[in-house]
Order: sequence, then structure tokens, then C-alpha cells
Amino acid sequence: MISRRTIRRYQQREIPSELLDELFLLANRASTMGNMQLYSVIKTSSKEGKEALLPAHFGQSMVMNAPLLLTFCADFHRFSEYALQRKALPGYNNFLSFLNAATDTLLFAEKFCTAAEEAGLGICYLGTTLYNASQIIETLHLPQLVFPVTAVTVGWPDEASVQPERLPLASFVHEEEYHDYTPNSLDAFYAEKEQVNAHFVLENGRETLAQVFTDVRYKKSDNEAISKSLLLALKRQGFL
Amino acid sequence: MISRRTIRRYQQREIPSELLDELFLLANRASTMGNMQLYSVIKTSSKEGKEALLPAHFGQSMVMNAPLLLTFCADFHRFSEYALQRKALPGYNNFLSFLNAATDTLLFAEKFCTAAEEAGLGICYLGTTLYNASQIIETLHLPQLVFPVTAVTVGWPDEASVQPERLPLASFVHEEEYHDYTPNSLDAFYAEKEQVNAHFVLENGRETLAQVFTDVRYKKSDNEAISKSLLLALKRQGFL
Repeated sequence: MISRRTIRRYQQREIPSELLDELFLLANRASTMGNMQLYSVIKTSSKEGKEALLPAHFGQSMVMNAPLLLTFCADFHRFSEYALQRKALPGYNNFLSFLNAATDTLLFAEKFCTAAEEAGLGICYLGTTLYNASQIIETLHLPQLVFPVTAVTVGWPDEASVQPERLPLASFVHEEEYHDYTPNSLDAFYAEKEQVNAHFVLENGRETLAQVFTDVRYKKSDNEAISKSLLLALKRQGFL
Repeated sequence: MISRRTIRRYQQREIPSELLDELFLLANRASTMGNMQLYSVIKTSSKEGKEALLPAHFGQSMVMNAPLLLTFCADFHRFSEYALQRKALPGYNNFLSFLNAATDTLLFAEKFCTAAEEAGLGICYLGTTLYNASQIIETLHLPQLVFPVTAVTVGWPDEASVQPERLPLASFVHEEEYHDYTPNSLDAFYAEKEQVNAHFVLENGRETLAQVFTDVRYKKSDNEAISKSLLLALKRQGFL
């Protein structure tokens, strides 16, 4: 676990379906709200299926390169349908229920990824899933109360990528209450990150590394536009 | 991983801080959006600290019984403060950024829990974290753009709990697209759950197991009231 790293290039070799089932059963032991198991996962391994999802993931090459793309969905549809069939009135078309199902889904996804890596596979999370949720909902025919929370490419590693640097432990662990940051502590915590990534500042013609994030990679205007469409998609799926 | 189960009773024995640091460093290798590491974790091990959080967790006994309570928080505050210090204008006071940070946080939390269990510790997720987010925000002094997403009690197991039943694989894995459920498939998927939990129906004086969920444990009226306060708390923390 300590030596893990994200894998974006994969061998052209299938994942045995028995192994995959075993990994799903392991993931299925993750903690879940009231044992309701508020998740579904869609397996995309066909060329057509991956091509259909590619635009939603901004054409990222690992989508086609990976033998398998998994879309992990918050799912209150299954449980609600079950309730209706048992003379029970489900009340899960609301925001809390979305967050409960999203939590279940992310714990399930992460348990799957940890198990997959233990088995020698490599994975990459696709943050684009939230950016283009509506497109994914349409492509995968997700009904009301089902929402794509994250997606992961899976396959046998075909690269020896290096581990990126991480913030030190003291920066994210707080004792008894939240201890706010000071100019000095921020300088210290981000020093290694700035050193290792200095070339990005030059490549992007910026003055600081932080500006690469705020002005190029994760811009306020993009975040605000996507937030709007995300809230709209949640509404359309019945969660708001 | 396949034999894991939630632990709610713990030995009265500390967790060595070196072990805990090791587990945090392992968790710190979890995937994260653009390597921004959008999480913080608050350690509560003092009696006073646990007592202060107890009401938010509806007085659940494992809060006081566990040597350690961890509150995992979505955190865009640290990165935003860093950006401001580096002549960059952060744009993370929006809903997408909340979901991105919540995703990072849950992957981090789940990696921590998997590693903790591998080390022999037991854990229990507290869904109450979302129910009473405002109380927790106040108690832990969480600043703007920090939001408690989940909490976990941690300790050495003092019970031999049994694994609860789970839905079969075919119920949550979909091939290429979402395949909707039929009355027959729902009957089959929930059959074991209904058999194992039949006593809850009697104990709660209901007609079906589903009614125990919809009318007693996870009620529509509660979900709607909590959704309102949750959206308000997100607004107050600057994410909406």
C-alpha cells in the first residue's frame, strides 16, 4: 500500500473474470450505511462502450488503453424499488440520501482498488466523472436515484511510474481540534511540492505553482460552471 | 479483507502513536484530485473531546468506548490559504469543489481503515457525521471550506462480531450498461437478507423488512429535515 502509484498505461491483456468477481466480493465487504449497499458498478470493456464514454472523460487516453473501465454509481434506485415491492414507502429522493449513497460508493470503490492493486493490477481514478455526469448518465442509461460518483480504469501495469510527492503528515493531521495554518507553516508544508514541480511553473508561464492550479488546471470559472450542471444533474436524477 | 467486519467494542488500550502515524502515511498514498490532498483528519482521544462530540453522534456508546475517534474532513481551506499566499486566486467555494474534496477524503479514510484492519485494529464508520455536521463544525472549530464527511472509531477489538449478509454480486455489477431490476430479480437478490433479518420485522411490529428501513430506521421525514440542515451547513462553510 505504501508503494502504490496511479497507473495510466496498461498491457493489452484481459483481466480474468474470476479475479474480477473475487475483487468485487472483497469490495462488497466495505462498510455500508445500515447494510443497504447503496452502490452499483458498471463494467465497460467493449470498444464501443469505451468509445461512447470517451468524450465524457475528455478523451483521456487511458480510457481506450485500459481493458476495463468501471463507473461507480451511488444507487438508491435498487433499494427504493425493493421497498415499493414490499409495501414500504421509500424516502430517498433527497440530498442526504445522495451523500449517504455516494459515501457507500466511494468506500466500495476504494476497497476494490486496494484489492486490485494487491492482486498486481493498476488503477487510475477519473475525476472527469463528476464533470460530465449528465453525459455518463445518458450513455449508461442510469435511472432516477442512480448517479455516477467516480470511474476507474483497471489493467495490468505497462509503465513504471514514480510516486508523486505528498504533503507531510503534520499538514493534514490535527490534534483534538482544527489548528489553522500560518504563513510559516504553509511555506514549510508546500516547500517540497514547489521544488519537485518547479518545471510546471515555467511550462505554464506562471509566477507560482499555485497559479498553475488556480489559473490553468482547476479554474474558478470552470468549477462554477460544472457546479451548476452537477446540481442540475442531481436534480434530474431525483436527489435534489 | 474478505473476513473484515465492523467493530463497535474496543479494549481499554491505547494505539501507539508510531503505528497511527504509519497508518496515516499509508492512507496518504490514496489517489487524490491533482495531488491537492483535499482532506484533514481530526484526532479525538481525550475524554473531554469525545464527550463534546458525543451528542452529535447521538450518544452512540462506541464514541466513548473507543480510544480514538477520527473525524475525516473535506478540506479546501488549506489549499486556498496556500494559493492566496502565492498570489493565486482560489476558486473552490462551490459545489464541485466540495464533492472533489469529499471524494479525496473518503478514499483517504477508507485506505486508512483498510490499513488499520490489516494491523489488527477494528473500526466503525459513524454515519451520524452528516446528520449533525453543524454541531461537529462548531465543536472542532472547522473554518470555511472544511466539512466533516465521515467519522470513524478505532481501537483494538473486544468482540467477536459476525459478518452481516451482503447482496449477491449479480445485484450490483452491471455489464456495459445499467440493467434495471425486475420483481423477480429483486425477490431473489433480497431473499437472504429477509431470511437473516426476519426478527427485526417482528421486533418492530412491521409487515416487511423494507418497512423497518422506511418507517423506523431511515425515514423520509428525517432524511428531508437533515437534507435541509446539511445544505445550510454546506452554505455556511462556503461550498454552496
